[in-house]
Amino acid sequence: MKRRQFLQGAGLATAATAVAVPAIAQSMPEIKWRLTSSFPRNLDALFGAAEVFAKAVAEATDNRFQITAFAAPEIVPALQAADAVSAGNVEMCQTASYYYFGKDPTFAFGTAVPFGLNTRMQAAWMFQGGGIDLMNNFYKKFNIYGIPCGNTGAQMGGWFRKEIKSLADLKGLKFRIGGFAGKVLEPLGVVPTQIAGGEIYQALERGTIDAAEWVGPYDDEKLGLYKVAPNYYYPGWWEGSAMIHHFINIPKWESLPKAYQQVIRSATDTSYNWMISRYDALNPPALQSLRGKGMQLHPFPQDVMDACYKSANTVLAQTAAANADFKKVYDAMVAFRGPEYVWWSVAEYNYDSFMIRALRQRG
Amino acid sequence: MKRRQFLQGAGLATAATAVAVPAIAQSMPEIKWRLTSSFPRNLDALFGAAEVFAKAVAEATDNRFQITAFAAPEIVPALQAADAVSAGNVEMCQTASYYYFGKDPTFAFGTAVPFGLNTRMQAAWMFQGGGIDLMNNFYKKFNIYGIPCGNTGAQMGGWFRKEIKSLADLKGLKFRIGGFAGKVLEPLGVVPTQIAGGEIYQALERGTIDAAEWVGPYDDEKLGLYKVAPNYYYPGWWEGSAMIHHFINIPKWESLPKAYQQVIRSATDTSYNWMISRYDALNPPALQSLRGKGMQLHPFPQDVMDACYKSANTVLAQTAAANADFKKVYDAMVAFRGPEYVWWSVAEYNYDSFMIRALRQRG
Repeated sequence: MKRRQFLQGAGLATAATAVAVPAIAQSMPEIKWRLTSSFPRNLDALFGAAEVFAKAVAEATDNRFQITAFAAPEIVPALQAADAVSAGNVEMCQTASYYYFGKDPTFAFGTAVPFGLNTRMQAAWMFQGGGIDLMNNFYKKFNIYGIPCGNTGAQMGGWFRKEIKSLADLKGLKFRIGGFAGKVLEPLGVVPTQIAGGEIYQALERGTIDAAEWVGPYDDEKLGLYKVAPNYYYPGWWEGSAMIHHFINIPKWESLPKAYQQVIRSATDTSYNWMISRYDALNPPALQSLRGKGMQLHPFPQDVMDACYKSANTVLAQTAAANADFKKVYDAMVAFRGPEYVWWSVAEYNYDSFMIRALRQRG
Repeated sequence: MKRRQFLQGAGLATAATAVAVPAIAQSMPEIKWRLTSSFPRNLDALFGAAEVFAKAVAEATDNRFQITAFAAPEIVPALQAADAVSAGNVEMCQTASYYYFGKDPTFAFGTAVPFGLNTRMQAAWMFQGGGIDLMNNFYKKFNIYGIPCGNTGAQMGGWFRKEIKSLADLKGLKFRIGGFAGKVLEPLGVVPTQIAGGEIYQALERGTIDAAEWVGPYDDEKLGLYKVAPNYYYPGWWEGSAMIHHFINIPKWESLPKAYQQVIRSATDTSYNWMISRYDALNPPALQSLRGKGMQLHPFPQDVMDACYKSANTVLAQTAAANADFKKVYDAMVAFRGPEYVWWSVAEYNYDSFMIRALRQRG
């Protein structure tokens, strides 16, 4: 066969196979993405979910779509994850939306606002109550598309060197706490301070700060704070739930084949279920363990809770008055929350109330 | 070009593309499956999740893996869904594991047992606490592989023609309720009766039965039971959460490419989040609506709850003594539940307690 004839034949044959095969090859091209997480590897219930997500994407696409998850700060510092995505330097990140509170307080609704929705309500609002559409309408300003990828559940109120017996004990308290919670506590006399996670232990030990909040029993135990600030308070009313998001650069998202967009959506649901289930499974034994190490468990006094609630409503209303985006999402969240907690107080809460009492009495 | 030369050329070209392309075509073949649901279309938060699942699978595979969801009883009667899957007549189903309680009471743990885990605990136990492995070890006997695909949340105790003021009022009560709950209530004087969903209204209207349980406000409102039995009791202690499963025929599951197995797993997570969020979003307005239609909301009296708890523990222990599979799963669930409810009583429950009280007082 002459070379020219061979090439002609090959051309025809390629055209023929082009009809039969490439539809799938085109719709599932080989793509490599990077995900930068705002969480270090030792927060394994948080960062671990990014690894679970990446594995689910790879497996569902027979390794054609590979996303590599990097922990903070391997490729991007923790609190710059959204900026990196916004700029398109990294395709996506795993982060807490409220870390970007300083850019615009509206970011807070993606994670938590003081006295906001509990974990299931937040999911219901996001997935079925229009919450995610409101937030994506806002995230769009930052070139970001957001999908909820997990939740820690209700967090703890943190570790205190001394007991808090009433509202008066908040006066002058140097508390490692940020965002909205700091603004809510300031009018009550608290001095909110910012300290990186790795420096909390030493600051409490030296008395540079009086208290620090972190996450919940499972993550907190690893920091060892019970040794230097044994009074462990609940609940973390600024994080009645703390939702985590995948933020994706919008042009990168839009460049994906539709199939890969759905692979990401469903793999993000896998991450979501993995994270919340993992916290719910690991916090109980960690609480037991902390009890054995001298941790003292206390509820915040009623007057502290009431004053914080009042202050939170003031701060939230002031923020809404000054920021139209914030107001729109806040009003929607408040409208959703009312009937949610009425229903919650019926079957869910009553069931839990009975079970807590029954198991305490009879085991 | 001569025909023979053309064919030779074509053959070579095909061989060349055969190296480059078919890996993906082979790993993502065209497959069509059927899913039969145990739920009718009008239970749209249940059956709707099967449609959401099927759509997610199709989109993630560029329509190469197509699963058609059929509602009960379009291709299989509601309570024969697992049998159809077990026999391989249908590849998979969406069902409540406890419907098969009569075959073996161990099936109940896939959905709910009286005074069992709440919704998040059940998910934590299944996904992270070894629950799904224990259950799949059991389902294997029936040629079934199970994956949790949703939850209704805590259910209501049902509709009663007359008020239940104390334990004595249960004597002789003809109650439409089945499974374990029926067995728990029988020693307390209740006469458990089995009636199909579509016949409940008439039976209550005529007084053939005195009470009936269904799901929660959203599904219950559609049956209109408030017109004939306006006393609506809570909580449904036999379903502190009600998990729904995908059951898949094991040889069919094993015949799938690994990629499609992962597509099913993640799309099932999408179904899971959709269903629970949908119930959580739709129950609150339905409860409000029912209030406007004359429904009377009551908690079960304390002596009724205490007697049911005691009876449940007896029935569960008796069942465990008679069935090794049941005992294995029951012991695991009880061991998981203890520390879970201790932790739950701290941050989660305390946060909800405060919010319920605060919103009642101040809105």
